[in-house]
This record gives sequence, C-alpha cells and structure tokens, in this order.
Amino acid sequence: MQGTAPTFDAEAARRGAALRRRIRSGELAQHTSGVADDLVQGNLVVLPATAAHDFLLYCQRNPRPCPLIAVGEVGSARVPTLGEDLDLRTDLPRYRVWRDGELVDERGDVGELWRDDLVAFVIGCSFSFEWAMRAEGIRIRHVDEGSNVSMYRTSIATHGAGAFGGPLVVSMRPLAASDAIRAVQITSRFPAVHGAPVHLGDPALIGIRDIARPDYGDAVKVLPHELPVFWACGVTPQAALQQARPKFCITHAPGAMLITDLLNHQLASN
Amino acid sequence: MQGTAPTFDAEAARRGAALRRRIRSGELAQHTSGVADDLVQGNLVVLPATAAHDFLLYCQRNPRPCPLIAVGEVGSARVPTLGEDLDLRTDLPRYRVWRDGELVDERGDVGELWRDDLVAFVIGCSFSFEWAMRAEGIRIRHVDEGSNVSMYRTSIATHGAGAFGGPLVVSMRPLAASDAIRAVQITSRFPAVHGAPVHLGDPALIGIRDIARPDYGDAVKVLPHELPVFWACGVTPQAALQQARPKFCITHAPGAMLITDLLNHQLASN
Repeated sequence: MQGTAPTFDAEAARRGAALRRRIRSGELAQHTSGVADDLVQGNLVVLPATAAHDFLLYCQRNPRPCPLIAVGEVGSARVPTLGEDLDLRTDLPRYRVWRDGELVDERGDVGELWRDDLVAFVIGCSFSFEWAMRAEGIRIRHVDEGSNVSMYRTSIATHGAGAFGGPLVVSMRPLAASDAIRAVQITSRFPAVHGAPVHLGDPALIGIRDIARPDYGDAVKVLPHELPVFWACGVTPQAALQQARPKFCITHAPGAMLITDLLNHQLASN
Repeated sequence: MQGTAPTFDAEAARRGAALRRRIRSGELAQHTSGVADDLVQGNLVVLPATAAHDFLLYCQRNPRPCPLIAVGEVGSARVPTLGEDLDLRTDLPRYRVWRDGELVDERGDVGELWRDDLVAFVIGCSFSFEWAMRAEGIRIRHVDEGSNVSMYRTSIATHGAGAFGGPLVVSMRPLAASDAIRAVQITSRFPAVHGAPVHLGDPALIGIRDIARPDYGDAVKVLPHELPVFWACGVTPQAALQQARPKFCITHAPGAMLITDLLNHQLASN
C-alpha cells in the first residue's frame, strides 16, 4: 500500500472524516473496535528520524507482523493516502508517550509533543481481516464475547534491524477445522493486514506454554473440536520498541486505533 | 473444465500422445505415478447411459470428491478436450470391469467390451495438486516413501443422486503447520482436482478411528509436530459405485490412470 494513492470511496471518506471529527472533539475517546467495521483501522508508531530508518527496515524485514500501510514524510502528521484531512496529532482517541522505552504518559492529543523530526508509521490491523472472516460467516469468539483477542510472545525471533528486534507476537482465534481452512483462504487475500496464519494446532511448537494465559489481551476458551489458529500480530513492533528503547516514541493506546477512509476490501490482494 | 476446449501446449501434447502410444502397445502396463508428473492424470468411470444421468448428478452434487474434468458423448471413447488422439478403450494401462457392483475382471484393454450406450467420466486426480505442492517445495511423505497415499472412509455422507451415495472418502498427508497453511493456499487454486482440504487435525472429528489403519492405500507416520491434513478423494465415487451396483461399469485399476495432454497448471483457477 505504501506510496500508492488509492481512490477513496466518497461515502467511506465522508464516514471516516466524520468519525475523526468526533474523535478530534473528544466525543469518541475510547476504543475504536466495532466503530465502522468496514473501514481500515491502523496501528500508529511515531519515532524521531534518527530511529526511523531502522524501524522502517524492521518493518520491511518483518512484513507479516508489521505490514506498513503508510509512512509519513519527516515532520508531517498527515497521511493523505489514508484520509485527506487526517491529522495524526489529534485523530486517534488515545495515545501513549514513551521515553527511553518507558511509558510516561497517556493522552487524547499529541499536538504539543509533535516535532519537526518525527516520522509516522501506520501498520495494518487485524480488525480488517476479522471483518473479512465475519463477512463470510465465520464467528470469532473474542468478538462474540466482547473481549480483546488473546496474544502471545512466541519462540520465533523476528529479523532484527539496528536496535529493533525481539520475538514474534501472535494473536490467536480458536476455530473448527473447516473454518480454519476457510480462514487461511480468506486472510491470504489480505497481506496488508497480517495475511495468512503463521501457525495452527499445537501451541508448544511455537513456544507457547499455556494457551489459557495470554501475554496480552484476554483469554478465550478453545473447545475440544477446535484448533487454535495463530496470526502474526501488530503488537510485535511494540515488543521491538521495548527492546530498542528509542529516546522518544508515540503510539496509539491499545484498541484506540487510527480510523482511515479506506475500505477493508480495498486492501485485498486479489 | 467440462465442455471447455483448452489449447494444448504442443510439447505437452506430444509427450502425452507418446505416453499413450506406449500404454496402447502394452509397453507401459503398470502405475502411472511418477510418469510425466506435470501432465494431468484422471480417474476413469464408464457407465451405461441408463446410469449415467444419476452418476453425473452425483458428481455435480459432490464436486470436491468428484471433480469432473471431462464427460464423453454417449457411445464415444474419445475425449478431445483431454487429448486429440485419446482412446479410452486402449489408453489406460489397466482397467477393472464390474458387473452388478462386483469386480469381475482386470485387463489392459476394453475394446471388446465397449458398447454404443456407454458414457465415460474422467475425474481429476490428486497427482495434480501433489505436483503443485511439490513444485513449491512441500515434501509429501508417501511420495518420498514410494507408497500409496492413505485413504479413509469418513462419517461425512456425500449428497446422494439416484442409487449413488455413501461416505466421503478422504486422502491424508501429514504436514507441519506452516506447510499445512501453504497447502491450503496452493490446493485452493485447484478446484478441478479436489481443491482445499476438507479437514485437518483430529481424525476422530470426521469419524476416523485409527489414523494408522487406512481403509485404502498404505499407512504413513504422522510425526509429533505434524497435523494430518485431509482432502476429498477420488475413491469416493468408487464407494458410490459399490453402493449403487450398476449392471455394468468400467474403471481404471488403482494407480493406472488416464494420462492427458493438459498441464497441471492449466487446471489452476487463478
């Protein structure tokens, strides 16, 4: 997606802009899950230019967990390929501010913190492929239960770049075998939002000791007739940031994503 | 595929015709496995016109186990969409002859038995999708071991048509999870040769009691890090024929398939 200038669907762009106005005004200040399910949402990472090249390289080397859907110009809070009026300083419901790898603040606006040397990265989010699966009738347990997806640090190492590296983090959805097969087919069409699963079946094979104790998110039950199905997860770059400890960093707060004007189906590869 | 007239690759057509000549002369009288891996091979079922409509309907209702790649005209042993010179009476290495559902003969030529009321069905074969998987570097154990694929009768019923019906028969290949995911992607592109798997993981969920005791073919080991992956199998119509017990029927002998002039990649849906 990076660098391309997709044509926005006019109605989608109107809805995206309206949602961002509500967020900007403080009216929508929490999670974006379930808000405009058909619009692409994104993870945000903002870094000083000194760290930006290595992080870009990290994403390039690890496209499954870090699928870039846009990278801003140095100093710019605009990402016109994702929304014309979009302003990354104000248009997310909630931000996290990090210094030397430590969380130092959580706030609804980062206008005061923005600098001329910052580079913004927007990374695809599993909401898009969950939309695609649900559109084809696959029930997703954590969505049904209104909880957060289960996420796990694995024994699989990502490819390092400069100071960035660390384990692959995966999200897990329990599915019956026939749904798991269908889910491989559906999510393979969405490489820009993590693509096909990276594993299914025995969690121990990727270093997960206890499926009932996720490292992030909420636990969900895996029923006897189901397989746990694992996808590369957008929390992976957060683990890489914790390892790299850049001097300064802004991210979205968990679940408080960037809402774009793109429709999920525009991310399909075929 | 049925009814279409694909353009043959000239070199492939030459090889297909040469192989059929060797079979016709009796020089090649056994299995066709490993012979011209890149050419489409087919299962053969020949029935009197009185049973043909129901069998055609059975295939139409069960496209995963019974993907028709060609149906001949009544009385004709020619299938020009699969090879110009192709003669179904002589061009398979070995035939089985059935009367009232009982195997009564096995022979290298059925010219004397051919009748004006016979209808020939050619059904896609898993050799084609195994070729596609191997072309992408996936090792298939029974191929490596030089044995026949493991096949099982399942608790899944096919959709009946007239006297034809019975259980879905599946073939099984043990694969590591990452290969299983890739195999779903690869075989999904080949609906004309059984397409995506129908199941993976726990065999008991589809009524298979003991994975080490296949109902047809040879047993292969499933290693601890592997999942058994199950595809709909071309033996399903044979089970349907045993149930229907038509007065007369000719099939290929197991492993002695029809070699066509089509290249496997010509069966890909995308």
